[in-house]
Amino acid sequence: MAHAISLAQKGLYTTDPNPRVGCVLVKDGVIVGEGYHRKAGEGHAEVNALAMAGEKARGATAYVTLEPCSHFGRTPPCSDGLIKAGVSHVVCAMQDPNPEVAGKGFAKLQAAGIELTSGILEDQARALNPGFIKRMETGLPFVRLKMASSLDGRTAMQSGESQWITGTAARSDVQKLRARSSAVISGIDSILQDDASLTVRAHELGFDDQEYAQFVASRQPLRVILDSQGRLPKSARILKQPGETLIAVKHGVQINVGADVLPLNSDENGLDLKALLVELGNRHCNEVLVETGATLAGQFIQQNLVDEMVLYMAPCLMGSSARPLLNFPIDKMADKQVLNITDTRMVGDDMRLTIGF
Amino acid sequence: MAHAISLAQKGLYTTDPNPRVGCVLVKDGVIVGEGYHRKAGEGHAEVNALAMAGEKARGATAYVTLEPCSHFGRTPPCSDGLIKAGVSHVVCAMQDPNPEVAGKGFAKLQAAGIELTSGILEDQARALNPGFIKRMETGLPFVRLKMASSLDGRTAMQSGESQWITGTAARSDVQKLRARSSAVISGIDSILQDDASLTVRAHELGFDDQEYAQFVASRQPLRVILDSQGRLPKSARILKQPGETLIAVKHGVQINVGADVLPLNSDENGLDLKALLVELGNRHCNEVLVETGATLAGQFIQQNLVDEMVLYMAPCLMGSSARPLLNFPIDKMADKQVLNITDTRMVGDDMRLTIGF
Repeated sequence: MAHAISLAQKGLYTTDPNPRVGCVLVKDGVIVGEGYHRKAGEGHAEVNALAMAGEKARGATAYVTLEPCSHFGRTPPCSDGLIKAGVSHVVCAMQDPNPEVAGKGFAKLQAAGIELTSGILEDQARALNPGFIKRMETGLPFVRLKMASSLDGRTAMQSGESQWITGTAARSDVQKLRARSSAVISGIDSILQDDASLTVRAHELGFDDQEYAQFVASRQPLRVILDSQGRLPKSARILKQPGETLIAVKHGVQINVGADVLPLNSDENGLDLKALLVELGNRHCNEVLVETGATLAGQFIQQNLVDEMVLYMAPCLMGSSARPLLNFPIDKMADKQVLNITDTRMVGDDMRLTIGF
Repeated sequence: MAHAISLAQKGLYTTDPNPRVGCVLVKDGVIVGEGYHRKAGEGHAEVNALAMAGEKARGATAYVTLEPCSHFGRTPPCSDGLIKAGVSHVVCAMQDPNPEVAGKGFAKLQAAGIELTSGILEDQARALNPGFIKRMETGLPFVRLKMASSLDGRTAMQSGESQWITGTAARSDVQKLRARSSAVISGIDSILQDDASLTVRAHELGFDDQEYAQFVASRQPLRVILDSQGRLPKSARILKQPGETLIAVKHGVQINVGADVLPLNSDENGLDLKALLVELGNRHCNEVLVETGATLAGQFIQQNLVDEMVLYMAPCLMGSSARPLLNFPIDKMADKQVLNITDTRMVGDDMRLTIGF
């Protein structure tokens, strides 16, 4: 199963909106087939593993990171494929996260007389697809907030000057965060300030294999701009990039710059962020990356919409007049927001913290 | 040599003001003696290793983490001991850091016909004694600044409320920082606010061996209070603790609370911190720990007096109205203070960063 999980990881940047899935077929202690889902519309992991195994699949054990599908999508159901190939035992890491179909693939396999084991390395398998799982379970995408700060928690000088806090390795790591995301959300101020394009750029991904990097960058995450007043100019660089841009505006605001427009309710805190996430869930967004300034980031956090924060911390001090990480006040220690550091590692000279909410 | 270094580490909390030193004697590929310096006034590492080896020392190779001393201190010179014992080869990690005596121990050994090798694992050996080395080289102690903050770089609520940002494991780790220090420096406001005692407490050190913990706590670092106006009351808890307290005041300020008083120059930034460190160097302080609030910590940093910062970062957000890590303003990115993260690890639920200046 560990091998099946590592196979699934090969699809990290490319399966969207499908889940990352790996499959290994073992017969008499020997791997006779293996596969992973590479790209939506291409073969599922089980199909690829069965194709490699051919006749050797008969009587084999299949290790799959996710319950085999039982319905016709763009491809025939994988449970049928496993039955037809004569697999005798299926070991799964986890059930289908969609409560309406969970267990149906299992039932189909068992009805066909196949032995079934489930729940093996389930935590690792769930970690492959935080977005797909959350969307199937709740309809909402998994929200990852990316921030960069100094050691003293500052994101920019008082003047707004912020380039560059972190080094090139950290910025390349952010490219990878974008590449695994279905959508990237930013605020209009950030876009206007840097004329940012929010794209995945093949040569900045830090992959040795440039052909693979090109393949990854051939799918651009949806770019979402929170622009309540419709200030984005037609000349903005973001509108000239491959992939799609969605502009979220206040109900009634007109903007015609050649991009999709999403009207949302708004109040004194700005646009209805929860409604935006519902819409992104409806558009099959699994993981969304929020790349914004301190105010919008603070709103996402205060409204309990963030699942994970990735914080790049540069080895420098920016002083007490510089801008804060998050623009929201807390008065009492009892009200502090308690989080959970799930991973720390160095990325170049910077430190990357992964923080669970 | 690696084994000699690990022996030296056993003296981490107890050799002050002497350096931590380890020694291993090897003959025909077998360890015939080993030792470390445990406590000032007791045997040096070489003496302990020679005592264990006895007659087997003749013809052996001695691995020592520091150049053997050549002068009479509280004990006879170790170079003489090695010569007398008939050791044939001495391997050293580093020279004596005191430029006035460096090489004299080596010369003595070589004059006696002993083969000599130096510079083996020198970086690791230097890391054993950052304070002793800096004091020998410059007369000043090694200054370690300890701070605790939230992920957004805040040390207290606007009201001053700060207990507790970090967990018990981090607070126990701070006890270890105190225990390895010759002196602990704090500001009068921190002392008054919590009636802090700044002591090493055996049961809070987190050692399994309570007898050892008691031994460690039997040496208390000098407590230094920056109290320019002499506000420390006679009733302060810090004055009733084992070990000594030194109160640094502005020239001309009188304070009579039964503790040593050090008058210092002062200007609009407060007391002359450099002069304080010179005085602590004269008092044989190797490592000093600065445990202060944002203002004093900022002054130490701005005056380039800090060698290392240990930052305990709690997995929480305290918001933008909370107090900053350091009270000093910087205007331009070009003026940001660039540092170097040398170690990161989890301590309980908190993260500990070691940052080099």
